[in-house]
Amino acid sequence: MLKLYFAPGTCALASHIALAEAGADYTVERVDFKANQQTSPDYLAINPKGRVPALATERGILTETPAILAFVAQSFPNAGLAPVDDAFAFAQVQSFNSYLCSTVHVAHAHRVRGSRWASEESSFADMKRKVPETVGACFALIEDKMLSGPWVMGEQYTICDPYLYTIATWLGGDGVEIAKLPKVAQHHQRMAERAAVKKALAEQA
Amino acid sequence: MLKLYFAPGTCALASHIALAEAGADYTVERVDFKANQQTSPDYLAINPKGRVPALATERGILTETPAILAFVAQSFPNAGLAPVDDAFAFAQVQSFNSYLCSTVHVAHAHRVRGSRWASEESSFADMKRKVPETVGACFALIEDKMLSGPWVMGEQYTICDPYLYTIATWLGGDGVEIAKLPKVAQHHQRMAERAAVKKALAEQA
Repeated sequence: MLKLYFAPGTCALASHIALAEAGADYTVERVDFKANQQTSPDYLAINPKGRVPALATERGILTETPAILAFVAQSFPNAGLAPVDDAFAFAQVQSFNSYLCSTVHVAHAHRVRGSRWASEESSFADMKRKVPETVGACFALIEDKMLSGPWVMGEQYTICDPYLYTIATWLGGDGVEIAKLPKVAQHHQRMAERAAVKKALAEQA
Repeated sequence: MLKLYFAPGTCALASHIALAEAGADYTVERVDFKANQQTSPDYLAINPKGRVPALATERGILTETPAILAFVAQSFPNAGLAPVDDAFAFAQVQSFNSYLCSTVHVAHAHRVRGSRWASEESSFADMKRKVPETVGACFALIEDKMLSGPWVMGEQYTICDPYLYTIATWLGGDGVEIAKLPKVAQHHQRMAERAAVKKALAEQA
């Protein structure tokens, strides 16, 4: 039995959707960010980084969204969530997810997590002001160069799709109009109609 | 034939070392950052993100270090650079590399790339001041919780090792004393003695 530690509104939703898509046997446990539970000794024993997601497996804990997503794809091959036996095609999937974690999520995080990288209120405000531009530039690249359609990798639904969907749910708050990104907007709508997405969102509510 | 686009002093060194470790047939091409070649139309046609590394393969271009590293490991299985057929063990490798790209490299980048996330000189200076603390905290976690030794994953040398080595070469500039991180320092020395590391450094010189 797998257990996913999550908080609502975070990137843990991507792993949650992937588990649901895979038909995995899993439970979820909410980490209460408002009570700073992610920095409690109990949770730090699970994930010393004090972040979500964390996935408890029978062999130990896994962290970091791209790693968890690839783990789910590889552990449930019948779900066909990634071309794990084709080194090039799998690398394309991983390249997309790596861009989301290292560039897009990071750009977004400067809106309210400026204290990770600076100390002055004026810097936080400056970072926050730039988020519509930086996240907008990331999504313009995704729209123009990366999202093949109907799914990220083309005809094949993969672990890129729940991750893009999750990060795109932040666009409004980041000051980026999804309506101006037609492929991203259509992808978002297509994802919202999937049973696994509805299931994960209901389990997080 | 694989071709790696790199610039000296960047994270492209990790992929370069992995190619050498794998015994791959590859060439390298230097992208001249001082002349802003990474934003030239010719290079943007290779990598629209305007970054390195990029790996040209017979099936197309791959970008993002964790994806390229996994591609090398999977394409050259005899080199044994990752436990690609063990979903949990492979996810541990990927989790480590994902942490390096999304957290450690990002913390480092705030030293001289503040303009990616803010607009004011005062913010850049603030970010720069915090780098010894943020990169130091990342490496304290690596030292205490993540680096098993002698290699990152323990007895097995993997694609985590060239990536950690590469990022650790930035520690001095980031104001973090590697000597205070004994496991990281020993790992760094152990890496420097490997033929593949010497070969990659010589090819970048």
